Amino acid sequence: MRALVYNGPRDVSVTEVPDAKVERPTDVLIKITATNICGSDLHIYEGRNPLDPGMTIGHENTGEVIEVGDAVIKIKVGDRVSIPFNIGCGFCRNCERGLTGFCLSVNPEMPGGAYGYPDMGGYQGGQAELLRVPFGDFNCLKLPEDAVDKEADYAMLADIWPTGWHGTELARVQPGDSVVVYGGGPVGLMAALSAQVKGADQVMLVDRQPDRLKLAEQIGVTPIDDSDGTHVDQILEHTRGEGAARGVEAVGWQAHDPQGHEVPNQTLNDLVKSVRATGGIGVVGVFPPEDPEGPDKLMQEGKIAFDMGEFFTKGQFMGTGQANVKSYNRELRDLIHDGKANPAWIVSHHLSLEEGPDGYKHFDARDDGWTKVILHP
Amino acid sequence: MRALVYNGPRDVSVTEVPDAKVERPTDVLIKITATNICGSDLHIYEGRNPLDPGMTIGHENTGEVIEVGDAVIKIKVGDRVSIPFNIGCGFCRNCERGLTGFCLSVNPEMPGGAYGYPDMGGYQGGQAELLRVPFGDFNCLKLPEDAVDKEADYAMLADIWPTGWHGTELARVQPGDSVVVYGGGPVGLMAALSAQVKGADQVMLVDRQPDRLKLAEQIGVTPIDDSDGTHVDQILEHTRGEGAARGVEAVGWQAHDPQGHEVPNQTLNDLVKSVRATGGIGVVGVFPPEDPEGPDKLMQEGKIAFDMGEFFTKGQFMGTGQANVKSYNRELRDLIHDGKANPAWIVSHHLSLEEGPDGYKHFDARDDGWTKVILHP
Amino acid sequence: MRALVYNGPRDVSVTEVPDAKVERPTDVLIKITATNICGSDLHIYEGRNPLDPGMTIGHENTGEVIEVGDAVIKIKVGDRVSIPFNIGCGFCRNCERGLTGFCLSVNPEMPGGAYGYPDMGGYQGGQAELLRVPFGDFNCLKLPEDAVDKEADYAMLADIWPTGWHGTELARVQPGDSVVVYGGGPVGLMAALSAQVKGADQVMLVDRQPDRLKLAEQIGVTPIDDSDGTHVDQILEHTRGEGAARGVEAVGWQAHDPQGHEVPNQTLNDLVKSVRATGGIGVVGVFPPEDPEGPDKLMQEGKIAFDMGEFFTKGQFMGTGQANVKSYNRELRDLIHDGKANPAWIVSHHLSLEEGPDGYKHFDARDDGWTKVILHP
Amino acid sequence: MRALVYNGPRDVSVTEVPDAKVERPTDVLIKITATNICGSDLHIYEGRNPLDPGMTIGHENTGEVIEVGDAVIKIKVGDRVSIPFNIGCGFCRNCERGLTGFCLSVNPEMPGGAYGYPDMGGYQGGQAELLRVPFGDFNCLKLPEDAVDKEADYAMLADIWPTGWHGTELARVQPGDSVVVYGGGPVGLMAALSAQVKGADQVMLVDRQPDRLKLAEQIGVTPIDDSDGTHVDQILEHTRGEGAARGVEAVGWQAHDPQGHEVPNQTLNDLVKSVRATGGIGVVGVFPPEDPEGPDKLMQEGKIAFDMGEFFTKGQFMGTGQANVKSYNRELRDLIHDGKANPAWIVSHHLSLEEGPDGYKHFDARDDGWTKVILHP
Repeated sequence: MRALVYNGPRDVSVTEVPDAKVERPTDVLIKITATNICGSDLHIYEGRNPLDPGMTIGHENTGEVIEVGDAVIKIKVGDRVSIPFNIGCGFCRNCERGLTGFCLSVNPEMPGGAYGYPDMGGYQGGQAELLRVPFGDFNCLKLPEDAVDKEADYAMLADIWPTGWHGTELARVQPGDSVVVYGGGPVGLMAALSAQVKGADQVMLVDRQPDRLKLAEQIGVTPIDDSDGTHVDQILEHTRGEGAARGVEAVGWQAHDPQGHEVPNQTLNDLVKSVRATGGIGVVGVFPPEDPEGPDKLMQEGKIAFDMGEFFTKGQFMGTGQANVKSYNRELRDLIHDGKANPAWIVSHHLSLEEGPDGYKHFDARDDGWTKVILHP
Repeated sequence: MRALVYNGPRDVSVTEVPDAKVERPTDVLIKITATNICGSDLHIYEGRNPLDPGMTIGHENTGEVIEVGDAVIKIKVGDRVSIPFNIGCGFCRNCERGLTGFCLSVNPEMPGGAYGYPDMGGYQGGQAELLRVPFGDFNCLKLPEDAVDKEADYAMLADIWPTGWHGTELARVQPGDSVVVYGGGPVGLMAALSAQVKGADQVMLVDRQPDRLKLAEQIGVTPIDDSDGTHVDQILEHTRGEGAARGVEAVGWQAHDPQGHEVPNQTLNDLVKSVRATGGIGVVGVFPPEDPEGPDKLMQEGKIAFDMGEFFTKGQFMGTGQANVKSYNRELRDLIHDGKANPAWIVSHHLSLEEGPDGYKHFDARDDGWTKVILHP
Repeated sequence: MRALVYNGPRDVSVTEVPDAKVERPTDVLIKITATNICGSDLHIYEGRNPLDPGMTIGHENTGEVIEVGDAVIKIKVGDRVSIPFNIGCGFCRNCERGLTGFCLSVNPEMPGGAYGYPDMGGYQGGQAELLRVPFGDFNCLKLPEDAVDKEADYAMLADIWPTGWHGTELARVQPGDSVVVYGGGPVGLMAALSAQVKGADQVMLVDRQPDRLKLAEQIGVTPIDDSDGTHVDQILEHTRGEGAARGVEAVGWQAHDPQGHEVPNQTLNDLVKSVRATGGIGVVGVFPPEDPEGPDKLMQEGKIAFDMGEFFTKGQFMGTGQANVKSYNRELRDLIHDGKANPAWIVSHHLSLEEGPDGYKHFDARDDGWTKVILHP
Repeated sequence: MRALVYNGPRDVSVTEVPDAKVERPTDVLIKITATNICGSDLHIYEGRNPLDPGMTIGHENTGEVIEVGDAVIKIKVGDRVSIPFNIGCGFCRNCERGLTGFCLSVNPEMPGGAYGYPDMGGYQGGQAELLRVPFGDFNCLKLPEDAVDKEADYAMLADIWPTGWHGTELARVQPGDSVVVYGGGPVGLMAALSAQVKGADQVMLVDRQPDRLKLAEQIGVTPIDDSDGTHVDQILEHTRGEGAARGVEAVGWQAHDPQGHEVPNQTLNDLVKSVRATGGIGVVGVFPPEDPEGPDKLMQEGKIAFDMGEFFTKGQFMGTGQANVKSYNRELRDLIHDGKANPAWIVSHHLSLEEGPDGYKHFDARDDGWTKVILHP
């Protein structure tokens, strides 16, 4: 089959690889119909968090079931399904509690597995014609009869909408809360959408790229341009000087100042200032345990200079970690199905698999208007 | 009246000051019967977090009502009461939500007020014969008929038991959880007691002072001696290599390594290692927004080099801040009254007010056996 | 001052009564600008739940502060305020926990006080020129600068929006849930609006009056007409045969079958059938502890023939009781202020106080189009 | 193999039946080492809730794994395991949310499956030498190295301890709460133990059989004898006239008055009176959807005359349904392993499988001292 594989920093190509197949009785085999390029795929692409050369990338997968193992009873051939990026077993202590991003069965190295991602168990990605889905009855979410018509919306269920939603859950966003999201990439925009769906009062999004700020504005979110460094003041002004009730970090350690330097502690310390006393912060931007090649000395060993004193004095709390997609994807699917939300408003490009490498180049360059790319193998 | 006042670093004395009195119709006036020296009073005593000279120290107060303002309807003269260290109004957004440690009415500088404490609104402390309690109906907790017999137990309700309890709430300790507490001072011991009361499975306490580890052991807590630096390994060994489900930080920024140097990020980073993926950390040890005179360069501006990468990768969460005493003190009072808990097991010394300065000296020196001091004016 | 008083069954009149005034140092005196007739005022009007003759009716009050007692520090003369229908002290065990509908201080007979309502402490109502508000700092919610422009919306904050919201809280409505509301009176419509604001997936409302069903439809709610008795089947059809995830009871014991007979257990047993296994039911329709004059024998002593067997087998849960308005009114106020919700869409009539008795007559007769009445003294 | 089968009302026998075996790749086969007689087995035994003749009874099962299907990866031959009474698939909407008592996959008739129980999917029970466990990786809980030494304690994990615990969860028991449990059978005693473990303040248990009241007393629970009808008054007296904060119903529809008549609404209405305003009630005693042969007319169609008026006026809530055992059994296992709880204190008899029919006779007769029976095949 054809697959988009990682060769080395800024070098991906579409090539022939062995067909994915059912290997265990609980497996399901999927024909991929939509597979998105994720912001975290760019960490791979840039070589900052590299994959083994030759491995297929891709963890935002949607498709049609073409074969099921002997032990599979719920999922049927022909079902249209969304596949959460994290792989769970369904029966370990964490999966049982809904913490499927930290499955104890699927990755011998650490809790949590994923498709086409470094250190997540060695599973092949889905930017390919076929995908093997372990524990298929647990990991496949069946899509309704409008699966094809609303494919772009449903394609957001594999990762970024649940991840944005997770940010608002970690921050414990409640109806009537004011919310500030740092980062207007796909996940940040989804966090802002999630806050809107949950009945947040005032939602603000901080970024400096006009295309992203414009997308935020389209759904009624207040855009905050941070290119002149006044963003914290703007947020305080919007909230009677108090700060937002809740904040979401959707940037991660590769935050840049307006001059283009990486400043790993920037967004988190800005959030401590932007959120009011007793408020909460949800962190879904990635902070890796080490970054040996990175420019920041503390961050090379996974540390940041964090404003713990102000954080404590304000009595704030912070939740972190990759999203447990399965905790949210059913309800979000239903909201799409019933027309209550249309997350695909951020999708800018639909490409073929063969056009994938070109898509990576533009998305990585943050070219204007390249906000979200779906590949259709 | 007689009162214990702060004069300057390591200089406190008992002296004559103007009588406390009812100033507003909602005030209550208390004759102090028990007032404890708190670990955070030592930050004042050492001049690291100094009080205005001449102010009375003391925020862990218990006493008898001797006068009430015209608007007071619940509290009566003669009532024995415990006074939460934080002062709340009862009707601001935070007090209404139980966040009484962050009252928006009682301190014009920042959310939250307290007795005899820097930057908390300028209220006189209770290490004195009399104390003025603002919003008395809201801030006084009535004690039952055994108020005198169990005075030492009830004296723990003003601060340290609720603060230890808060640590376990912030970490979201549930029945059956394994819990590790860093710091065996009064608050750490109370956090360990709280975890026991809540039905935690295995409770561990990290410290290096034998008197503290012994007190932990007396209530069935596993003592972990960190003097040789193997404490994280010991915790992992006790928890099948996984780490504890929950952790509590009860040390604060003045953590010391075994050689006696201040290492502000030590306990928090050790907690990240000691707590399992998806676990929670409650921080009740104090981290100030700045520490200009301190030895650590980052901490001078309130920062620590925090293991954000590992914290995020493990999907942990952290809650912080001073305890909202009123959220817990009713139920904890009832547990004392019905004999379900005896927090006074840590009290080592009962002194008169005049002996207070001597008590400060010994407690600050961490003299062996000086685990908790109550003054009786 | 002029006030609308209860004289006897179906007999109310506007008459001269002694001026309301500040009686205690914590009181606030309000000039009423808007005071609504509530569905539960009709229980008084009809004599089913009578008030003492001569007492002023009215618990949905909005106004301007014209005097404050000596102990009041937050609320100022000139403030525009919304007054929750329940009166709380702010410092009893229940008020501290946000359970202000069950205040232990303001009513010697049972937990909970209210204005102009039987058995709720004997407080005069607000369908009058002036209203005395006890514990004014606690009970007044300050309205923002658009208080006059959006008066009709803010007038919904005193009772019916928080009460409808409470129904969805008791049922634990979460984003993505399907929700069915029984009863399309003001409270039921507000419950439906609340579910929409919270991001519910599909919201259905059961009634048989065309004006109510039309109002539901206007905000995107699915109207379910129960006049032919097929409502449960309709709900099952809308939810793939499973039933709604959550249900709200907004009718109470005076439910009628299509033939016009009172059937007190009807809506609750229909809800058990309409809600899926493991689902929740929030009951905000009133069920009194006794109804001696009522037509139903069980209900005369406060009982209904409840489908406990099906309720248990389905593992459902039920929460009940009057709304704790203060737990919700700040956030709901902010949603109005920022234009996220406009609860006044249900208001059909603005009358003067003198027109009040006529308003009662039409509203009680359920005359077409009389969905909600505001009086402006 | 030998198995205890139901033949008809009050007629069970041990007989030869076909061996249980692995039927699907996800199955696990267990050799039973301990299988308890449950109070709800008596509903079968008495013919009130009959099983198909010839079916094996028994849903409280503990054993050793002797064979696993091809798809099983976690559970190994030789593992000692506790088997939750409810059978879950692990991947339906309810199992994913921890609602394993309402699995949508294992029973075509209604949500929820179980071993050896009417209307629960037709699975054979475990009062036999062998048991087939569907979805073995999900449904087996591995026991630690003291599995044999503490077998009686671990045998309580299959049903009654989690069921008692569930009662306290449904009632939302918090540390410091007062709790009253109606019913001193095994489940009621376990609810009382659960409240103790959770740090409840005062725990009371209502029954009239001396052996049960004595067992309650042994763990520090206040026994309330209801044989003279003063139990509600006793509870009010123990709680300063207010009623308990939380209540648990552990009797079910076959409640008897002291004269021996069945009064299905008795315990629930007593609970409404015994629990304070705003309090919660957890119902784990069984109420069936119909009881055609029963003596109570309302209950024949599954109804009870419920004090809805008082329940609503007090703003109480109620949760119901069979326990989701898997939500609790890991943590409860750990509490046994670490010596924090010893639920086997209620076990009165250890019998062989062949002695089982005799055990049913004595347990059904409520013979003095027959509080809990374990069969060892």
